[in-house]
Amino acid sequence: MKYEFSITKNPNPKKKPDPDTLRFGTEFTDHMFIMDYQEGEGWHDGRIVPYGPLSLDPAAVVFHYAQEMFEGLKAYKSEDGRVLLFRPYMNAQRTNRTNDRLCIPQIDEDLFVEAIKALVKIDADWIPQKEGTALYIRPFIIADEAFLGVRRSNHYKFIIILSPVGPYYVGGLTPTKLYVEDKYVRATDGGTGEAKCGGNYAASLKAQEEAHAKGYEQILWLDGVHRKYVEEVGTSNAFFVIGDEVVTAPLDGTILPGITRNSVIAILKKKGIKVAERKTTIDEIVQAYKDGKFKEMFASGTAAVISPVGELRYKDEDMIINNGEIGPIAQELYDTIYGIQTGKLPDDMGWTVEVK
Amino acid sequence: MKYEFSITKNPNPKKKPDPDTLRFGTEFTDHMFIMDYQEGEGWHDGRIVPYGPLSLDPAAVVFHYAQEMFEGLKAYKSEDGRVLLFRPYMNAQRTNRTNDRLCIPQIDEDLFVEAIKALVKIDADWIPQKEGTALYIRPFIIADEAFLGVRRSNHYKFIIILSPVGPYYVGGLTPTKLYVEDKYVRATDGGTGEAKCGGNYAASLKAQEEAHAKGYEQILWLDGVHRKYVEEVGTSNAFFVIGDEVVTAPLDGTILPGITRNSVIAILKKKGIKVAERKTTIDEIVQAYKDGKFKEMFASGTAAVISPVGELRYKDEDMIINNGEIGPIAQELYDTIYGIQTGKLPDDMGWTVEVK
Repeated sequence: MKYEFSITKNPNPKKKPDPDTLRFGTEFTDHMFIMDYQEGEGWHDGRIVPYGPLSLDPAAVVFHYAQEMFEGLKAYKSEDGRVLLFRPYMNAQRTNRTNDRLCIPQIDEDLFVEAIKALVKIDADWIPQKEGTALYIRPFIIADEAFLGVRRSNHYKFIIILSPVGPYYVGGLTPTKLYVEDKYVRATDGGTGEAKCGGNYAASLKAQEEAHAKGYEQILWLDGVHRKYVEEVGTSNAFFVIGDEVVTAPLDGTILPGITRNSVIAILKKKGIKVAERKTTIDEIVQAYKDGKFKEMFASGTAAVISPVGELRYKDEDMIINNGEIGPIAQELYDTIYGIQTGKLPDDMGWTVEVK
Repeated sequence: MKYEFSITKNPNPKKKPDPDTLRFGTEFTDHMFIMDYQEGEGWHDGRIVPYGPLSLDPAAVVFHYAQEMFEGLKAYKSEDGRVLLFRPYMNAQRTNRTNDRLCIPQIDEDLFVEAIKALVKIDADWIPQKEGTALYIRPFIIADEAFLGVRRSNHYKFIIILSPVGPYYVGGLTPTKLYVEDKYVRATDGGTGEAKCGGNYAASLKAQEEAHAKGYEQILWLDGVHRKYVEEVGTSNAFFVIGDEVVTAPLDGTILPGITRNSVIAILKKKGIKVAERKTTIDEIVQAYKDGKFKEMFASGTAAVISPVGELRYKDEDMIINNGEIGPIAQELYDTIYGIQTGKLPDDMGWTVEVK
């Protein structure tokens, strides 16, 4: 292997959770990967160590100025026992685009993937195999130089932790109810909408809670300038089936370039289904609904893969989509992507990377 | 005292720094204040302990989703030995407004101020007395429940640390050169611009670095929707003297409600100087410059108090303000505010709070 990481085995491995009651993101495996960055020295001392607390100065930049980023992907164990990652180089590339926006130093993309592989390998017994479960992989970077003042940190930690997870939405593929947010804004041109940084998520909590209080599971965000173009669903990309065309927001600065989004578009194209990345107004969607042309809606993301939408509320307009049931395109996309991820379907796209 | 905090004295006090070489935010005192929040239990266990590292689970919310906020204020020691805080209840009130936006639980405002007083009292020997120095007080809250997923944390830490500081800008009251930012955006309606949360600062680093590379010390932000209204200077509020009027952006959602900003407005009003909180376009400022009416510009903030601006660059227009020198209004405001803060001037406004 090109990269050498030191390994300190956990002398006290934990009991593995019951796969039948797994939730999302609450349990963690026996090990984690850590690597440090020091200005002038670069990234160094990549190591696998027992999962445990981080010790940080209370003046660490991450606590005050949120110079931080994260990624998310999953490992699956196929029926024939192979351990599969899904498009991990795309996470590595997106990491560096986020890092650039947040003034975090670039990271070698091969090293990023090799570190994931090394960690997943050592904790491979933690990969659950029940339908709908996976080993969620969370790489993240935090700025931990101890100083107060607004400038980039000179010290960082790149960390990977692993969590055996059940479905992100407890209801699985049950269609969700969405509220079109017209008060809060997730992102705007010139901001950090296309970066995977903590600040975007903290800013979204309030809108999500207000939607919950109104009886909706998630929100559909509109753009920050005109308040009319549809952008994302909560923390996922949004797709609309209008007539015979699937549309989603273009990657023009405010949209997170989702890896599942990219995969959805590629699969649709391969299957010969019309797909367009174009700006779409909420008014166009309401009109399509009135004309009987708004056939399906779904969100795409690593956590839930595909999440169908059964109801969309915009001001006084309550749109029931496909009778509140999962539509054929969403179902086919879920089956295809999940099938490739878990090795059940042949990987014609060359998307999976095996951990050997 | 209404609030009881346990105190664990630091058995190994550090050597205090030389006041002549103090920088900003790099040295910290012997103690810190910590208080925990648990959903269902509320804030509890307020305590003063030796300054030292925090131990946090790598899945703590703050590392991934930036659910965090901070405040900043200063303590001064007057010539007659009194320890003075400047308007600390305004920090407490702003904390709760930020907390509301970030879905962080509210905190008792009296407790917030009493905790600051108790900590400053125990480390009062750390307050430097040289002109331009102060004890900077940094209260902050971090979400530290260990889970992955986008929802509010059920556990938080409220922490206060203290740092003896020199001037924020090494040049002191030397006028700075600003670049009008027309690519990146700091805040937009519906976002978190008026909240003091980490994400706003992480998002601002890139623009600041690009301005530095062009030879400017700071940026002047424009609004995110029209890209024409002037908003803030870096992380400070912006003031412009146009003709006989001082103008600053109104608090309509994207502007941080600065405590120094509020004090500047109150002092100007008291002195009978015309001051307006109104939307002002960069074009109006350029036109005023051409007409010889753009007299002064300065930024206000806790760290630098008043920071005069000597040059403002917008596209091809290079505006030299007041011959690149500090103007009379900026100088008078600095002298007045710093005078009140340090007890040199009588506190007619009732702004200082003594730590007894």
